[in-house]
Parts: sequence; C-alpha cells; structure tokens
Amino acid sequence: MNENEKKVIEQIVINTVKKLINEKDSPNRVVLGISNKHIHLSQEDIETLFGAGYQLTNIKDLKQPGQYAAKETVKVIGPKGCFEKVRILGPARPESQIEVSLTDARILGIQAPVCESGKLENTPGITLEGPNGKIALDKGVMVALRHIHMPLDIAARLNIKDKDWVSVETCGVRKTIFCNVLARVSDKYDYEMHLDTDEANAAGLKNDDYLKIIPNR
Amino acid sequence: MNENEKKVIEQIVINTVKKLINEKDSPNRVVLGISNKHIHLSQEDIETLFGAGYQLTNIKDLKQPGQYAAKETVKVIGPKGCFEKVRILGPARPESQIEVSLTDARILGIQAPVCESGKLENTPGITLEGPNGKIALDKGVMVALRHIHMPLDIAARLNIKDKDWVSVETCGVRKTIFCNVLARVSDKYDYEMHLDTDEANAAGLKNDDYLKIIPNR
Repeated sequence: MNENEKKVIEQIVINTVKKLINEKDSPNRVVLGISNKHIHLSQEDIETLFGAGYQLTNIKDLKQPGQYAAKETVKVIGPKGCFEKVRILGPARPESQIEVSLTDARILGIQAPVCESGKLENTPGITLEGPNGKIALDKGVMVALRHIHMPLDIAARLNIKDKDWVSVETCGVRKTIFCNVLARVSDKYDYEMHLDTDEANAAGLKNDDYLKIIPNR
Repeated sequence: MNENEKKVIEQIVINTVKKLINEKDSPNRVVLGISNKHIHLSQEDIETLFGAGYQLTNIKDLKQPGQYAAKETVKVIGPKGCFEKVRILGPARPESQIEVSLTDARILGIQAPVCESGKLENTPGITLEGPNGKIALDKGVMVALRHIHMPLDIAARLNIKDKDWVSVETCGVRKTIFCNVLARVSDKYDYEMHLDTDEANAAGLKNDDYLKIIPNR
C-alpha cells in the first residue's frame, strides 16, 4: 500500500467516525423504554391492598428520576380475564392508574381508551387484589399515549415545546413511523421515549434501541 | 335562503360527495384484515393430530378466495407457555406453519423471526397437540411479514409489481406509517392488507378499517 492509499483510507476512517459521533450526539436520537403493563397506586389504595401504613419497596430505579419498580405486585381482575402479578411502579401518586396495552385490555375484557397519563376522566375501572384486600376502582385503566420525556436542553435544540406532537422513525425489517407522539418537556425528565409492548413489537423494537425524532410532522 | 345560497350549498354537497366517492374508489385505499395467531397444517400433520383420512371442516370463508377458517383447533405448546385453542386455517398446505405475533412468541417462550409466509428456513419448531396425537415440529413458527394481497388491476393502476415494498398510512390518535410492507400481486388475490394483532393494536386499528398505500416509499 502506498502513501496515497494510506491517506485515502485515513480520510475514510476520519469521516466515518465523525459521522458516527455526530449521529450519536444528535439531539433527535432518543433511547426507547418499553412499558409493560403496570400500575401506579395512591397511598390509600396501597394501604387497602397491603395493610395500614404500608410503604412500597424500591427494587429498581427507573430511568425517569425518582421513579422505581416496586417489589410488590397486585392481581388485576377484569370481566373476562385477569393478570396475576402486575408490577407496581412507585412512588405513590394522587390517583391510582393502570396502564395496559390494547392486547392486555382485550384479555381483561375491557375497553380502555388511548390517553395521556393522569387524565383519568372516562377511563373504565377494574378490580385489584392484594394480600390485605380488594378494591373495585371505578376508573383508572388506560392505554398510555406514546410519548417522549424530554429535558429542556434537548427540547431547545430541537425547537420542541411541551405538549408538541412529533413523529418518530424506526429502522429494520419492521420500519415504522409513529405519528402523534406527545413531547413532554421538563427539567425533571431524563431523555427517553415510551412505547407499550404492542407498539414495540409492531416495529420489532427492543429496550434501549435508538429511534429518530422528526420534529415538524 | 335565497336562490344564490341554495346554489352555493348544492355545489358544496356535489363537491363533497364527489370527493368521498373518489376517495372510496381510489386504488390506494385498502381494507384491513387483522391476523390473530393461527396455523396452517399439512395433510400428514392433520391426520396425526385428528386421525387417518381426516378432513378439515370449513366454518367460515376468508376474504382470500379458497381460504377458510376450520372448525378444528390445536393446542400449541411452547417451552414457556401454551395456547389451548389455535384456529386452523384451511385448506391443507404442503408444509405446516404457525403464525404468531411477537407478543404471542414471548408467551410461548420462543424466538420467532419476522418472515414471509412459506419461507420456513431458520424458523423454530414447536409442539402441537390434537385429539388424536402430538407432533414436535422442527420448524414452522413465524411472525408474518406485513403484506398486501393485490389483484392485477389494482397493481397496474398503482404501478406496483409483485414483491415490491410499499408504505401504508393510517389515521386516528395512533396514526402510523408502516414501512416495508410487501405487495403480493396475483389474479388469485382479493384486495386486502394483513397486519398481526401487535401491529393493528399499535395503530389502534380494527378489522375492515381502510388504510392508504404510499407506493414509492
């Protein structure tokens, strides 16, 4: 190999590495977290299900600051089917909320609407069972609207405001563009996109895959 | 209302109805059929599972000519979980093939690849159980590649050839663009798009919804 060829190869390596570094640092490259069915409970409901004064046990911190997977699970009982051990995510919230996929909702036998977390109006209820008791919730079951948790600096670089809708593109044999993805911008958030198991499977995605945000679409 | 206003309203009605009719007749408007997990069996496997000389019973014609849902079901047994009653689709095929979603594959505990119907190389096997016996298949479990069955006249109008890849757009709160959709063109086909339950749920779709094909993408 002569000096000229060496220089050409060196230049190819430099350009390729630069390209990879740029892609890695691109603000529209977001990591995926796949949400399996889970439940957020109010302190009152925790105590009914697990006993007076009960506190959830953190067994794993989640990517979003302060959020964790609890050791505890509950049985979720629908009119048609049930799930024995649905993971509780902590800490306690003002209202109990059960997030399922449309596949899960069909197994339970309920019509759960696709809606934004915390917006419990018009959601159906369900029965929960813990070691200390049962609760028949009159609302709280939803299919979470797909969304991105976005810190302020990333949002500024992408010119995205809180509650904007964006599209997100995947790659691979099941390449998909998810439209109507809600951007949730806050200094409390770590940068992460959330899809449910139906959405992740439809696009053949795994946890920690990277997806590309298309802001103005 | 004066005559002028009546004429304006008449024109609005004419234009709107024309637009709706055009949309309805547009060749890129395709109806959706959602594939739940199902199984195609060879005649040899039908006889092992149901008895010598057994013939499947047609209880419902499918949209694709000659295809039908059979009365018979089989138990599909994976290393981690099983499904008690998986519908058989007839008629018998040269090789047995089990089509599941990625959600189903996870429940069964197997790694099923996304691939084209009939391409059974490198697919995992599974155990089937019928009233007359059991079979341990050494291959045949797959997640079907999303596809469109397209008759010749529609393909010609859209300038699409057999085995072309197209994209398909949905609407609604879970608006999605499915890329890498295989066009299967034949005079034996009725015009219909097939998605599995994960894909349909990810986009919030129901059977018989209409989707829009984007040919050159």
